[in-house]
Amino acid sequence: MLPIIPVGDRLRIMLNGEIREIRAVWFEDGMVKLIDQRKLPANIEIFEARDYQKVAYAIKEMVVRGAPAIGITAAYGMAQAWLQKRDIDKVYQTLQNTRPTAHDLFYALNLMKRGIENGKDAVKLAENYANDIIERCRKIGEYGERLIPNNSRILTHCNAGALAVGDWGTATAPIRMAHRHGKKIFVWVDETRPRLQGARLTAWEMVQEGIEHAIIADNAAGFFMRKSEIDMVIVGADRIASNGDVANKIGTYEKAVVAHENGIPFYVAAPISTFDFSLKSGDEIPIEERREEEVLFCRDCRIAPQESHARNPAFDITPAKYITGIITEMGVFKPDGISKLRR
Amino acid sequence: MLPIIPVGDRLRIMLNGEIREIRAVWFEDGMVKLIDQRKLPANIEIFEARDYQKVAYAIKEMVVRGAPAIGITAAYGMAQAWLQKRDIDKVYQTLQNTRPTAHDLFYALNLMKRGIENGKDAVKLAENYANDIIERCRKIGEYGERLIPNNSRILTHCNAGALAVGDWGTATAPIRMAHRHGKKIFVWVDETRPRLQGARLTAWEMVQEGIEHAIIADNAAGFFMRKSEIDMVIVGADRIASNGDVANKIGTYEKAVVAHENGIPFYVAAPISTFDFSLKSGDEIPIEERREEEVLFCRDCRIAPQESHARNPAFDITPAKYITGIITEMGVFKPDGISKLRR
Repeated sequence: MLPIIPVGDRLRIMLNGEIREIRAVWFEDGMVKLIDQRKLPANIEIFEARDYQKVAYAIKEMVVRGAPAIGITAAYGMAQAWLQKRDIDKVYQTLQNTRPTAHDLFYALNLMKRGIENGKDAVKLAENYANDIIERCRKIGEYGERLIPNNSRILTHCNAGALAVGDWGTATAPIRMAHRHGKKIFVWVDETRPRLQGARLTAWEMVQEGIEHAIIADNAAGFFMRKSEIDMVIVGADRIASNGDVANKIGTYEKAVVAHENGIPFYVAAPISTFDFSLKSGDEIPIEERREEEVLFCRDCRIAPQESHARNPAFDITPAKYITGIITEMGVFKPDGISKLRR
Repeated sequence: MLPIIPVGDRLRIMLNGEIREIRAVWFEDGMVKLIDQRKLPANIEIFEARDYQKVAYAIKEMVVRGAPAIGITAAYGMAQAWLQKRDIDKVYQTLQNTRPTAHDLFYALNLMKRGIENGKDAVKLAENYANDIIERCRKIGEYGERLIPNNSRILTHCNAGALAVGDWGTATAPIRMAHRHGKKIFVWVDETRPRLQGARLTAWEMVQEGIEHAIIADNAAGFFMRKSEIDMVIVGADRIASNGDVANKIGTYEKAVVAHENGIPFYVAAPISTFDFSLKSGDEIPIEERREEEVLFCRDCRIAPQESHARNPAFDITPAKYITGIITEMGVFKPDGISKLRR
């Protein structure tokens, strides 16, 4: 494994003998480059997408995941296609058809398409988009940190960290900020089957940042809530409807219901690009169902009988009533108060 | 993999070139023999315990698991020690210290110790105990089946099946009975991290029995509850306190809360040996915390960073208020009505 030293807001890693400070996604030498999140934490490999088909593959196969990072990847993919003088409508279509749930994907694609149609420099546009989202996540950190008292024990689900954004993270931004400001915090990391983004990615980020944490099976969060060992929950979001219903990684709904039952504050952290005001409620959000092998196997090992099948919804909807607040770059809102964020 | 043909109430498997009908645990040639549940579903291997230390190992390391099967194994272990003229108090102590949560273990050990002290034939006593528990589970099946309408979609957590009992199962007894009586049923199988008893064992039993089923990540049950694709939940129990609080596999509590929130009946199936009337409430039940490697690894593959740690409670407590009914060999009881089962 390559040595990693966290520095400032970026990851500093040894790459081909050279120390580099990188984000989870960036654009370089005409290529969209990504930390291959399928390989973490055992290996740090950079995936290089040379064209929009490779970019589509990276999104679909979860080389990159996390709503904001998917949006940034799509923006760079559009910029690359613009440089390569591709048919922009076709590229737009291809990237749009990769994953259905995260709103940032469509948000970024529309923004890029409009910009290109208006004759803008698409590379600059994508770079600005990435910087803008990351700056918004930093602000999420500032607003969110105020909700975290010293000595807090925070549960998070899946990975809504720097890897899911490019930098800072959404759910992890307040956590990082609190840690950097010297607050003592402890993070409970749901392992997040089937893809284990918690155990593999969030735990990895916590290690890089030096934040005390423990991984738990997804089954165990309720146990620790009931024992008053979890003070608050912060998760990310893939799409938020007008009424404050939130689509996020499968299992989020269960955590929210059990937190509510135990009187534990449940926060969602997300930039404005996650909000879809065209949808009245979460029931209108399309939920991706991924292939059954993700459940039937754990990493490379088949865990189920050959004859058995699985169902594999990748996200669920958490109704607004279970959500204490939504932490955005414009402040913290009650779910029923987000309509003022409409632009 | 050896060929398996389900027959009657037992598993018929090819063993050393011979077709055998077996239970999950039995006593033969002076040895306690067990289907090694760590190896399923990929391999069917028989674990042979030659003495009480091996029996203790089998319980501790989960060669056998499931409250009733642990009880039966301990009973055979005592019978074996009696045959081998061991120090019964020492054997009792050793077996008692294997796992703290399941009540059947202590129930069986006390019953055997008393019997041996009263000069009974311990082998017959253990055999009767095993037959008795299995017959009780068959009755659980009869009572429980009445709760299952045709076309039911039933969620179960962990493995409270034939492997967890010896035969029939607790939670699966009503399911088997309904299936054999020609009802159309569908079983949602929680994979049940960290030990994957659902994906590995319950799914395997469903395959043997020809019952339609789908494995889901533990995170996904809430999603299907909210979509009205789960009609009822049936789980087993490791210990039940006087007030109807239930200790069962980690994650049971979350399922119960979310089922309650969605108005879905939540049943616990357990023989009387599971009840511990010496405890006022579930908060008095000792919860085993197992080693962190069970969470940090999935089968043989490390899924977490080398630097990360995990917490691993093996059970949780589901308060009585979330439980619709407890299915026993004496009928179905409201959790607050179980005191009449006291003997």
